[in-house]
Amino acid sequence: MSAERLARAYLLRVAEPPAPAVVAFVARHGPVESAELIRRGDVPDAVAQETTARRELDLAREDLAWAAREGYRLVTPEDDEWPAWPLLCLDVATGRGVRDVAAPLALWVRGAARLDEAATDAVAIVGARAATEYGEHTAADLAYTLAHEQTAVFSGAAYGIDGAAHRGALSAGGVTVAVLGCALDAGYPAGHVGLLNRVAAGGAVVSEYPPGTPPARHRFLVRNRLIAALTAGTVVVEAGRRSGARNTAATAGALGKVVMAVPGPVGSAASVGCHQLIRDAHATLVASASDVLDTVGRLGTSRPEGAGRPRRRTDGLGPQALRVHEALGERRGKSPEGIATESGVPLARVRALLPELELAGLSERCESGWRRSRSGADPESGQTGIRAGQDGSPGLMRVRTDG
Amino acid sequence: MSAERLARAYLLRVAEPPAPAVVAFVARHGPVESAELIRRGDVPDAVAQETTARRELDLAREDLAWAAREGYRLVTPEDDEWPAWPLLCLDVATGRGVRDVAAPLALWVRGAARLDEAATDAVAIVGARAATEYGEHTAADLAYTLAHEQTAVFSGAAYGIDGAAHRGALSAGGVTVAVLGCALDAGYPAGHVGLLNRVAAGGAVVSEYPPGTPPARHRFLVRNRLIAALTAGTVVVEAGRRSGARNTAATAGALGKVVMAVPGPVGSAASVGCHQLIRDAHATLVASASDVLDTVGRLGTSRPEGAGRPRRRTDGLGPQALRVHEALGERRGKSPEGIATESGVPLARVRALLPELELAGLSERCESGWRRSRSGADPESGQTGIRAGQDGSPGLMRVRTDG
Repeated sequence: MSAERLARAYLLRVAEPPAPAVVAFVARHGPVESAELIRRGDVPDAVAQETTARRELDLAREDLAWAAREGYRLVTPEDDEWPAWPLLCLDVATGRGVRDVAAPLALWVRGAARLDEAATDAVAIVGARAATEYGEHTAADLAYTLAHEQTAVFSGAAYGIDGAAHRGALSAGGVTVAVLGCALDAGYPAGHVGLLNRVAAGGAVVSEYPPGTPPARHRFLVRNRLIAALTAGTVVVEAGRRSGARNTAATAGALGKVVMAVPGPVGSAASVGCHQLIRDAHATLVASASDVLDTVGRLGTSRPEGAGRPRRRTDGLGPQALRVHEALGERRGKSPEGIATESGVPLARVRALLPELELAGLSERCESGWRRSRSGADPESGQTGIRAGQDGSPGLMRVRTDG
Repeated sequence: MSAERLARAYLLRVAEPPAPAVVAFVARHGPVESAELIRRGDVPDAVAQETTARRELDLAREDLAWAAREGYRLVTPEDDEWPAWPLLCLDVATGRGVRDVAAPLALWVRGAARLDEAATDAVAIVGARAATEYGEHTAADLAYTLAHEQTAVFSGAAYGIDGAAHRGALSAGGVTVAVLGCALDAGYPAGHVGLLNRVAAGGAVVSEYPPGTPPARHRFLVRNRLIAALTAGTVVVEAGRRSGARNTAATAGALGKVVMAVPGPVGSAASVGCHQLIRDAHATLVASASDVLDTVGRLGTSRPEGAGRPRRRTDGLGPQALRVHEALGERRGKSPEGIATESGVPLARVRALLPELELAGLSERCESGWRRSRSGADPESGQTGIRAGQDGSPGLMRVRTDG
């Protein structure tokens, strides 16, 4: 039981996520020293505010013993299994001032699947609990085909669309991951205890919350950032006018991820939120699993094992991402339409790839549209480390040195 | 029976639409001299190619007598009723090299409604003949509400969606217009003869074709440009993968009109074309009549009676169009997204308004997006005539001097 591991388990007990000040503190001081300073109360105000209420609650050994007993595990940034690359978008968004999207300090995981592998090119399928038969059928159908195509399906284990998505992926024998807004042992939702057992058998059930944490409305919203971050794109299957699924979609958009929505009959209240997302929030309409795969593409979320550091900033981009990058001007911005025309890449893909390239430090928005990033080095210059130049914080550097 | 009227009736007999060379010839020489020159064969090659086959077929008096007997009329560009402003987009598109969209030389009209008034802020509702109950219900419902809101509903009188749209508008006691791909007396489609009688009672049935002209596949496609031109936007309610309704939508797009599509269940083959239009062709998703009205806006297709000539180029623009115009840069292009952000006008409306502003000579596309038109005068300069500066041809000038 390493010191880092104990420190991370302690931090998960102490800081209710999202805890941006604690995350930044740990990035600066490391988990062991951070935990010690927090325990003593020897911390800046912002960190104190996130930790004072529970800092004396040191159950790290008990929590780790509980996990060992149950066959669960704590996955930390120090582990190979940590999905560092997908979660990077949370650090980037926090750095940009997006609120409430701080990275997790560690994750409690139950299940057979490695989290970093599951999160490679994964897709989230989410939607309303008050789903229709049409919505559940569509969610299960999409999940089945995606899982069959080796794409892991992430969702939130709720009744309705979420459950149908998990079931569809399971029926294809594929990997599905449930991210919870409560502890792994909360037994919630009660009607999905059996489903979560089956999800864990070949996939994973994931939570930031230490054992005993009950579900709460704010925890579902906080959890949504993990579903969005761990996947290349989020599909909303059914959503009413005020569905929480729209929150996941908004978070995915804020993280630069692809947001997709499934249309339905215009008279169906359960599709109103999806139609609003497509009409007003620029979500891409998807009517099939191949629409989903076309839309998310294959950019940037995974890297081949042992490939070493890239030699050019554009190494590791897929063919369409390369074409989009090449179509970007050095100075004048171009509209997505102009880039689509020049690159020959469909507009929906261009719209999906531009924010991904931005996250990778390869594109930026300007007044007149999108152009190549000026802060980065010459793409032909043989600079090492695609994203190392984009943010010098240890937290971000770590991502590129762990693999 | 004026000489112009006889000449136009002759030209409709002689030239199978679209007849761009004849339209340009008539714009230069006027209808009477053009008809005489065509009758004699004293015309340039391009005009000869469009007229040689039938130039000796002078049934103008008979056709006008037929119309008088049936209670029909010939509406010509010389008449107050001519929908000059909506049809202007056909001249503009032809001038830009869009093929097969030449303006009509005149129109045979049956019915109580004035064509210019019906075409003010009208909406086209079109779709597949092989429609589902869902599609027909949705088309009728949209048409009912639009007609109830004083928006005329144009369609093509076909079975399926078209018929449902006409019926929906009729049931609201509103104005609906059927544009045919055959003569007014063709009795086609056979099952809609009664419906067309009801359409004519309060609205209009319109055709370019002289009496006796049978329906033909190419005439439906040619007719589609009139449906697109005479309306502010086209709504596709259901369309299979290869539906002709998608041709109307493509034509509407080429004419700078708003293209909208209604989503449906993802498993329905009748909605595949609509989903493709939204996903791949940037059609705006509409789920209700208020979505349609929001999307088409109220720009430019109508002008108050007796308002006289505008003093500034931007006079006559609605409030949102003005905001979009103000958000455009003088030199650097901006993306629709950037313009939406700056103007506070929703992106879907910005996308609809930009091509309308372009038609009005107030915006233009450039490499990096959209900017104010450079060819036009300073918008603050008190120049008279919004669109007069945009194209000096007599055909275009006429539009502003007829009213």
